[in-house]
Amino acid sequence: MVEIVVRKDGTARTFSVKEGDNLLHVLIKEGVAMLSPCGGKGICGKCKVIFKKGAKAPTDSDKKHLSEEELNKGMRLSCGVKITEPIEVEIPLTSDAIEVLTTGDDEIGDVDPYVVKTYLEMSLPSIDDQRSDLKRLQDALGMEDLYVNSELLREISAIMKDSNYKVTACTFKGKLISLEPGDTSKISFGVAIDIGTTTVACYLVDLTSGRVVDVVSGVNAQRPYGADVISRINYTTQQEGGLTTLRDAIVNQIAELIGKLSAKTNIPMKHIYNVTIVGNTTMTHLFLGLPSTNIAVAPYIPVVTSLVDIPGKEMGIPIAGYISVLPGVASYVGSDITAGILDCEMHKSETYSLLLDLGTNGEIAVGNKDRIVACATAAGPAFEGATIKCGIGGVKGAVSKVDLDSEKIYTTIGDAKPIGICGSGVLDMVSEFVKHEIVNNMGRMQDPATLDLTENIKKRIVPSTDGGKEFIIEGNIVFTQKDVREVQLAKAAVSAGILILMKEAGITHDDIKDVYVAGGFGNFMDINSALTIGLLPKEFTGKVKSVGNSAGTGSKMCLLSKNEIDDINKISTSVKYVELSGRRDFEGLFVDQMTFDE
Amino acid sequence: MVEIVVRKDGTARTFSVKEGDNLLHVLIKEGVAMLSPCGGKGICGKCKVIFKKGAKAPTDSDKKHLSEEELNKGMRLSCGVKITEPIEVEIPLTSDAIEVLTTGDDEIGDVDPYVVKTYLEMSLPSIDDQRSDLKRLQDALGMEDLYVNSELLREISAIMKDSNYKVTACTFKGKLISLEPGDTSKISFGVAIDIGTTTVACYLVDLTSGRVVDVVSGVNAQRPYGADVISRINYTTQQEGGLTTLRDAIVNQIAELIGKLSAKTNIPMKHIYNVTIVGNTTMTHLFLGLPSTNIAVAPYIPVVTSLVDIPGKEMGIPIAGYISVLPGVASYVGSDITAGILDCEMHKSETYSLLLDLGTNGEIAVGNKDRIVACATAAGPAFEGATIKCGIGGVKGAVSKVDLDSEKIYTTIGDAKPIGICGSGVLDMVSEFVKHEIVNNMGRMQDPATLDLTENIKKRIVPSTDGGKEFIIEGNIVFTQKDVREVQLAKAAVSAGILILMKEAGITHDDIKDVYVAGGFGNFMDINSALTIGLLPKEFTGKVKSVGNSAGTGSKMCLLSKNEIDDINKISTSVKYVELSGRRDFEGLFVDQMTFDE
Repeated sequence: MVEIVVRKDGTARTFSVKEGDNLLHVLIKEGVAMLSPCGGKGICGKCKVIFKKGAKAPTDSDKKHLSEEELNKGMRLSCGVKITEPIEVEIPLTSDAIEVLTTGDDEIGDVDPYVVKTYLEMSLPSIDDQRSDLKRLQDALGMEDLYVNSELLREISAIMKDSNYKVTACTFKGKLISLEPGDTSKISFGVAIDIGTTTVACYLVDLTSGRVVDVVSGVNAQRPYGADVISRINYTTQQEGGLTTLRDAIVNQIAELIGKLSAKTNIPMKHIYNVTIVGNTTMTHLFLGLPSTNIAVAPYIPVVTSLVDIPGKEMGIPIAGYISVLPGVASYVGSDITAGILDCEMHKSETYSLLLDLGTNGEIAVGNKDRIVACATAAGPAFEGATIKCGIGGVKGAVSKVDLDSEKIYTTIGDAKPIGICGSGVLDMVSEFVKHEIVNNMGRMQDPATLDLTENIKKRIVPSTDGGKEFIIEGNIVFTQKDVREVQLAKAAVSAGILILMKEAGITHDDIKDVYVAGGFGNFMDINSALTIGLLPKEFTGKVKSVGNSAGTGSKMCLLSKNEIDDINKISTSVKYVELSGRRDFEGLFVDQMTFDE
Repeated sequence: MVEIVVRKDGTARTFSVKEGDNLLHVLIKEGVAMLSPCGGKGICGKCKVIFKKGAKAPTDSDKKHLSEEELNKGMRLSCGVKITEPIEVEIPLTSDAIEVLTTGDDEIGDVDPYVVKTYLEMSLPSIDDQRSDLKRLQDALGMEDLYVNSELLREISAIMKDSNYKVTACTFKGKLISLEPGDTSKISFGVAIDIGTTTVACYLVDLTSGRVVDVVSGVNAQRPYGADVISRINYTTQQEGGLTTLRDAIVNQIAELIGKLSAKTNIPMKHIYNVTIVGNTTMTHLFLGLPSTNIAVAPYIPVVTSLVDIPGKEMGIPIAGYISVLPGVASYVGSDITAGILDCEMHKSETYSLLLDLGTNGEIAVGNKDRIVACATAAGPAFEGATIKCGIGGVKGAVSKVDLDSEKIYTTIGDAKPIGICGSGVLDMVSEFVKHEIVNNMGRMQDPATLDLTENIKKRIVPSTDGGKEFIIEGNIVFTQKDVREVQLAKAAVSAGILILMKEAGITHDDIKDVYVAGGFGNFMDINSALTIGLLPKEFTGKVKSVGNSAGTGSKMCLLSKNEIDDINKISTSVKYVELSGRRDFEGLFVDQMTFDE
């Protein structure tokens, strides 16, 4: 055994580990949240640690991802470290997958949930009325076929007798989920959850008023195993017990987040009767412990896209009732999108609208009350920072806005010292490059000498170590030619996807009256920047609005309303999924859309 | 720790036990099947052992139940033995709760079970057909709402893909219970079970042909904890963890019996898709682990009488599908009776019929297709041997027939050396007493000197140790005045119950065209003896037939047919239960029926 010391946020922890253990694995196992989008393959360069003691010579991967200066101060990628002697490392802020808070929508819609609590005063049993306790309860509820699971069946008699047959029954879709002494009919809660690839948001909702009581969120606990859905699916197939590891990570995280909500609000877990869950199809599969391999390989077949109700206790989440995993459409259009469609009421609107959810993936839906078509594009990673050299999530110190005309060309989240650039910053950066012609319409960075710019800007454009150019934002935080290419690919995918869907729907830009941009990144991005680089067609100018976390809002709507559940079920079966891969017309449009117009 | 040696059937086992342990408890715990109807209270005198080493002085209870001769050869009641030193005991045959085989009914009725196996050849997924695996399966089955539990959901994709989408789906009431590669549609089995208070019978049934493949049975593993339902209910309330002990006993026994059927027939457990269970309401409650206290106290409220479907795995019985506990009527008219009504087709008949189930309890139903009334009487224990001095179950060596006019006045099961008297022998004995006026019409045994009998019979009537008289059958196997009283009480209860039900139905003896006698004892008893002592009214002469284990047959019918399940559900809700306790008219009739007529 070897002792290692890990410092983070000013505190130090000591672990005993086996000689030969991998440092990244140890850190994840010990609950140190580490960014590791590539899953420990030495590709992403994100899982940095700073050695205070015991640093070895840098690996090739270290040299590729870290600057001379960083290497000199002891920085290494933890995925390349085999522990052979006592070490002491510090976790820098950039490697830390810190908590992100997602805001909820405070509007209260329809309140008529599947969870129903009914206070009953039953007549007492007698020799003249020897109905079984279950029958007495069924008769009082007027539910002849009320189902009671064996565990609860063992308890109903004592509860009924001890409370003198005055009880509150809580039912859900024809099933008894709780029987409580006395009148508790006004105490009824649920949790709406949005499992993002990056962020998990949980809303504790009062099912009698529809009010959101509290919200908690966190970075998806699966993050250390891969930034995007494909890396996570690969983890399930390439690591022994990988599927269980990922399932346990998210299930335990959700149990903890719900526990946190319960503790913060003093609302006991036993009064939480339903949890609705939305997420992309991979996230919901991993949550349910379903094999996800076929999602990643053609013809991309998921196990299930319809609504799945499963007892909380069966999942290991100790609430009274059921977990409802809401229905999606296909492997790459999940319940986060059906929930978004529900929130934006696309399925009720006479006029056409478009929903673009820019999270880790980029899903698009176009339609109206008669028909909706949807597709998915590989757009997200660039805007989540994973494929951008200095890219990071929307954390404190992330460059979130760029304006080359201002004196201070960037703004960071929390006005902190810059530590990297997040999605909205990336979008602004490229938009500024286009506006100031730092890139040409093919995306190639120009020689600063030929540009009509201030010296302050010109001097930031410098040759990069990989042979191209890069733009210095501050210190060693740069934006490279390669980063521009990543954004180009992403925007081409999204804008080509939009064109294909309009073609499928048989409509033009003019027919689309509303454009909804959703998702963590969608919420923070500058709409003008998106229009400038052509992520959204210029024809949509004036029609675009951010709708925040529409997936989470849709999840909440379903928690609160039978009608919304019925609607999302209909959406799930009626939305036509358009598979872009292998489509000739998509490939053509994708190439067309690579260029920047001015 | 103390070492004890236990001999049985010629083999010896050695156990290490704690000093102070109770011998009966040790024997039960170590799986030595012991008769112990009173549950170890020293009342029934059945749990005899013979000390080969270490016998202590007899207790008061020993002296009460055992003869001088028995005491001298080292016989003691094991419930009164505290182990303080190494001992060696032998288990005599009379104390051994040996296996009893119950015969099945070979007639095959309707074969259209809820278990349905369907072979499917599905189209392969492609980019043009990206339905989820579940949707593809639902579409192929034509079951849009097919429910799949989370465990099976995790497996369907691999099964479908690996078998090239050629699979056999096994469904049960809208739920998928198994998905198998290739065509296994002809391999489908179920088990019909009758949990008697005394005997458990399991029929392995081929669900495609309706044929009974094999039968196993055994003495109910709860027997050591009490002979009748009330003693078992008392055990659950008076012993810590008593309910769990009794539940585990019967659940494990059923798992073992099904395992035995599977092993004998080479039919794997995974191809057993449904188990139907009938039993009196206490037996089904204990099987489900439901608290049964309220069954024993007025107003006698069961937890549930309707059909309960529960996944086998949830019960700890490793079959593929569900356990269906069939519906009963009330606390003392269980699913064994509704199954019997189903078997006798009382609910379909234009004319009236009567069903008498004489097991440990005596339940009676009277009716026709328009209405059925039912009641329960405390009749059984006398005929099961529990309250009879030399009474035993229907095991080898039990006196099963008595004929005082023959040279050898009795016959034993298996023509073995007599070891006690079983129910049919008890009935014959009293019938012979009545015929030969050994008892008067009040049931009092007469002075042999006054009787017109052979000397061979006269000399058998001797004074008994308790001050009354007794009849020597052979050696120390006797039938006492007190035993006659027990039979009188039982027959009075049954015949008064019959009169009450006829009154409730508004009919006379003449209206009843068929009298069905069911139950372990009902199957073996001599109908003429029953008519002679007035257990059945003389008016029924010529109308009585034994129907064997009608409860088991009804269980099998439900396993095989949706219609029968529908029918038993209807029977369960439409049969009117008549509570006899506290009814003045019943008490009057009960006293009237105590006498014997000649």
